[in-house]
Amino acid sequence: METRTPRFPFPLLAGLLLVVLVGPLPALSGGGELEAQAPDRETLARMAAEQTRPGMYELAELLAIPNVASDTVNIRRNAEWLAAAFQERGFTAEILPTEGNPLVWAERRFEGNDRTILFYAHYDGQPADPAAWGQEDPFQPVLKAPDPEEGFAAIPMERLDGEIDPEWRIFARSASDDKAPIVMLLRALDALEEEGITPGSDIRVILDGEEEAGSPDLPQAIRQYRDRLQADLMLIIDGPRHPSDAPTMRFGARGIMTLRLVTYGPAEPLHSGHYGNWAPNPAQRLAHLLASMKDQEGRVTIPGFYDGIRIPPEVRPFLDAVPDDEDRLLREMALGAPDSVDASLQAALQYPSLNVRGMGSGWIGDDARTIIPDTAVAEIDVRLVVESDHEHLFGLIADHIRGEGYHLMVDESPDLDVRRAHPRVASLHRGLAYPAYRTAMDHPQMTWVREAVDEAFEQDAVFLRTSGGTVPISPFVQELGLPAAGVPTVNPDNNQHSPNENLRVGHFTDGIRTLLSILAR
Amino acid sequence: METRTPRFPFPLLAGLLLVVLVGPLPALSGGGELEAQAPDRETLARMAAEQTRPGMYELAELLAIPNVASDTVNIRRNAEWLAAAFQERGFTAEILPTEGNPLVWAERRFEGNDRTILFYAHYDGQPADPAAWGQEDPFQPVLKAPDPEEGFAAIPMERLDGEIDPEWRIFARSASDDKAPIVMLLRALDALEEEGITPGSDIRVILDGEEEAGSPDLPQAIRQYRDRLQADLMLIIDGPRHPSDAPTMRFGARGIMTLRLVTYGPAEPLHSGHYGNWAPNPAQRLAHLLASMKDQEGRVTIPGFYDGIRIPPEVRPFLDAVPDDEDRLLREMALGAPDSVDASLQAALQYPSLNVRGMGSGWIGDDARTIIPDTAVAEIDVRLVVESDHEHLFGLIADHIRGEGYHLMVDESPDLDVRRAHPRVASLHRGLAYPAYRTAMDHPQMTWVREAVDEAFEQDAVFLRTSGGTVPISPFVQELGLPAAGVPTVNPDNNQHSPNENLRVGHFTDGIRTLLSILAR
Repeated sequence: METRTPRFPFPLLAGLLLVVLVGPLPALSGGGELEAQAPDRETLARMAAEQTRPGMYELAELLAIPNVASDTVNIRRNAEWLAAAFQERGFTAEILPTEGNPLVWAERRFEGNDRTILFYAHYDGQPADPAAWGQEDPFQPVLKAPDPEEGFAAIPMERLDGEIDPEWRIFARSASDDKAPIVMLLRALDALEEEGITPGSDIRVILDGEEEAGSPDLPQAIRQYRDRLQADLMLIIDGPRHPSDAPTMRFGARGIMTLRLVTYGPAEPLHSGHYGNWAPNPAQRLAHLLASMKDQEGRVTIPGFYDGIRIPPEVRPFLDAVPDDEDRLLREMALGAPDSVDASLQAALQYPSLNVRGMGSGWIGDDARTIIPDTAVAEIDVRLVVESDHEHLFGLIADHIRGEGYHLMVDESPDLDVRRAHPRVASLHRGLAYPAYRTAMDHPQMTWVREAVDEAFEQDAVFLRTSGGTVPISPFVQELGLPAAGVPTVNPDNNQHSPNENLRVGHFTDGIRTLLSILAR
Repeated sequence: METRTPRFPFPLLAGLLLVVLVGPLPALSGGGELEAQAPDRETLARMAAEQTRPGMYELAELLAIPNVASDTVNIRRNAEWLAAAFQERGFTAEILPTEGNPLVWAERRFEGNDRTILFYAHYDGQPADPAAWGQEDPFQPVLKAPDPEEGFAAIPMERLDGEIDPEWRIFARSASDDKAPIVMLLRALDALEEEGITPGSDIRVILDGEEEAGSPDLPQAIRQYRDRLQADLMLIIDGPRHPSDAPTMRFGARGIMTLRLVTYGPAEPLHSGHYGNWAPNPAQRLAHLLASMKDQEGRVTIPGFYDGIRIPPEVRPFLDAVPDDEDRLLREMALGAPDSVDASLQAALQYPSLNVRGMGSGWIGDDARTIIPDTAVAEIDVRLVVESDHEHLFGLIADHIRGEGYHLMVDESPDLDVRRAHPRVASLHRGLAYPAYRTAMDHPQMTWVREAVDEAFEQDAVFLRTSGGTVPISPFVQELGLPAAGVPTVNPDNNQHSPNENLRVGHFTDGIRTLLSILAR
């Protein structure tokens, strides 16, 4: 069993993140004296609509520069395009070198502001296999209109010069993830400029060039450039809105720790007839270990795993208010019932998870042979929440395995003598670990953003206490102590990371409107 | 999940095999009036030694005809060579067509005999990849002598003309499995002829051409040619001696049933962050099911699985007498302890087994991705004993899965609507099923063979009540009601099924001696 070298991007997590939810959540106000100067909803809508046409052309220009993280020549072209775009808007902009792809940093200060927003986005994109796309080149954007037969059919880009249908979409890699939000920000700035409105916050921007590769160089870069990144709050403009398509904010994200658990049988695969019933089977042992870690309802049974996790009563209403259509999810996923970690999807995401993401032993399908396999492997990912760091949970898992009677090797594989010396042997190998973050929804720097997002539209906004997945935001929170939230704006059905990624034009307009509402405040 | 079409070579097993062990085991007699005419041990040794030189040349000639089951042209050449070889010894021989490769059948009757032995062997061999062998062509046999550096080093075949070292080996595909036993039989007949001894039994021979491919056409052929296969007993001359290298007989073999168990999660793999703790994980469910089937000591916990299995007290001494070196096995297998189905390897083999031969879900290793997989698969083989047929055990396993709260589909996969309709869904797909056989060690036709094998050598013979693996003998037992035993003769370290298959020359001599002892009786 070959083992990957464990990679811990953070040598040690010094402790739990200090950003915690405190106190009761205030009701959302309908506006007040502080927002007196902000444009009203109708003005925001008009301003955003006016930026849609030039913004779409500008986005198309940016999408035409390929941005796979490993394509360093084109990555550089993207960075230069972006630095220039901010400089044209009166920003100081720099391309900051890192061990990997450069960061693009930009800053603009305004008279009389005592607040700085740091916007985070990324300009790299997932690799794209042209053969799987409905267009010749994922980096030659194509405008498409809904089509009853094909779903979407190409139309000339010049159709943007006439009346714009919000149902049109632009198809290209990174159309949604994550170039559109950058252009939305540029166009929101233009709208304010044209309207003669001074932004209510100073603005810093940091654009990551390796997000799709896991941002391996970001923590070091944040330490190196920390002075340029100081701010009062950070807003992550990345990702899709909640599936209900309401305006959305995310105040946290789970972290992740990956583990590989290996159990051992005979040194080499054995004939299952000659030795079946006598030589222990590693797949069976792995099954016992995994079964001992969770109950039939999906709850982790490792002692202490959920310790310290408590959903405060005042938070429940926020979780309950999220319009998840769980019946539809179950139907789409072809599931008869969900696991029972808590009463709802949103509540379940407040807990750490323990997920078998892959499992293997011997051979399956046409390759199956009648053997007792030599090893069995479970690839596990543990999603972390701020109440439990990866070292703590790793210790609980390791102790649990030992408690099941195993001699456990950590981050190394047992040699044959170790396997001979113990009736049960397992090894547990750590992969990556990335902490959770969560900002209190009633943090003073969050309440005004929440209002800005909520008031920009008729539709009530969805406020997610945490997303289940992981975003590369923790280094900012850890190093800089920033309250942070995600302001995702793109359409949930954007085919992110997949062929035929797209951005709905109406969402582009609404995204500009959202950022306008924040910047104008 | 693609499912193979279930293949049941036997439409139905009409019931348990009727060959059961009855009554106490008699002590082995030291010879008696019935064996008065049999040559003594020294004569047997001399006669076998005299056949070694010409026998090795004859074996080399046969080994030079490639015999992979799919190579029908060369398979035919093997069959013709074999039919001619028996005809030269005064046999009636025929090549019997089947749906697949032909059987070679031969018969010789002698005056005054009232007993017929049917010998079974196979003339096809495993495929061989020349690149993995220490010689140019696995079908160009090479004589080798032990060599301190290389293990074995080639010597000219003509060295057989001088003094023969029993430590020499002939290397070629099928050298041991299973061409040597056929040539041993031919040479034992020659030795009797030269010595003027009439065999004590009439002889029938059936040579299988598809054993390594699972003998798919054998059951039908046995029904078709049943008149040619009538006999008083059947001896299988195939396989290696017991690892202790003592003369060996096997009186049974476990059967096998293969199953594929599939559990279901979401219709498509899901992001483990977004849905981990909510969407059920099929690998976790599979782990629970497998863990529910066996305890931590390797004993099957499915109710009724071991019902009817009882090792009679008079059989225990035979099991205990088998000189298995379990400490050495554990050392070689790098195991700290065996499973605890019964007190010893031989005792454990008297029970049916339930073995996870392969397991898979999602991806492992460098391909691992952070998903909740859509399905999980366990490939299972159940080794059968005569007390429990496959239909009975299949029913117990299926009932057990249902008892764990699963909606179980048999031999078909659930569609999405079925998956939506039940909280837990699994499917169980039957592969092949092949029954066990066992002949009573004190069957009248077994006791005299046991004596012949035991008395041919100074060394005590090893009598195995059953082998753990499966041999294609059950059709003979089922269709023809024959008492049957294996008389394996080749060296245990012959690399059967692997590169550098070989036969030790000393074992070739001893094999002739064993068969001589049987035929002379």
